[in-house]
Amino acid sequence: MSTSDAADVDRASIERTTAELLAAVNASDADRCSAVWAVRGVLMPPHHPAVPGHQAIVQYFRTLFSRRKFSFTFTSSQIHLVGDTALERVTYRAIIWPGDDAPPIEDVGKGLHVYERQPNGSWKLTHDIWNSDQPVPS
Amino acid sequence: MSTSDAADVDRASIERTTAELLAAVNASDADRCSAVWAVRGVLMPPHHPAVPGHQAIVQYFRTLFSRRKFSFTFTSSQIHLVGDTALERVTYRAIIWPGDDAPPIEDVGKGLHVYERQPNGSWKLTHDIWNSDQPVPS
Repeated sequence: MSTSDAADVDRASIERTTAELLAAVNASDADRCSAVWAVRGVLMPPHHPAVPGHQAIVQYFRTLFSRRKFSFTFTSSQIHLVGDTALERVTYRAIIWPGDDAPPIEDVGKGLHVYERQPNGSWKLTHDIWNSDQPVPS
Repeated sequence: MSTSDAADVDRASIERTTAELLAAVNASDADRCSAVWAVRGVLMPPHHPAVPGHQAIVQYFRTLFSRRKFSFTFTSSQIHLVGDTALERVTYRAIIWPGDDAPPIEDVGKGLHVYERQPNGSWKLTHDIWNSDQPVPS
């Protein structure tokens, strides 16, 4: 396999991980979300302290999904491969149902995903940080 | 020079870049801020769209510093070197003077810096994204 073919395989594998993350978030499935994470990964959500490690991440998603539902799409993705690490810059659009019968909120923003190649050739998230493009609510 | 010595040199160089970024932000010096950025770097501030490229970054900082002053410190840093790319996870504490004689605001949060080694051996920022740990202001 040429270097370029190998990179294509890596990109396709990373895209599958990203698609699985989206599907899991949109299905409010905390266990499925945490399965795309490396064991020592760190989730870095806005307006919340960093969430370090698999167990804390699954608990974070369980609590989150008990309160809110999401429909996320990534509106752009640029993947940069460096050995066994990959960096993905994304933009997103999200609809958020905040619960308590409140109307849905729309958000657009951007993020960085860092992935690490696993021994079986799959890629898992080690870092995920994002923030909104929209002004702070007044 | 051993691999470990070379990594120490790289880390020290990255730490100088980070220190220069902090000093430039705290001095409200937009040109000095933009000098730590790679030409095609992307600044990804919260509650603002991404700011792509050197010229847009210097303009962003000029506008920002005309409105607000900052005193930032990084309260932790973990640097991960991968070839000519480096990833730094930071936590920060900031005091922000929002202008119009409003009292200063304190913020704590986290971020990811991505650096790229330059031909002269220095390291410049290609991505900087952060967000607050604090709840959305109600």
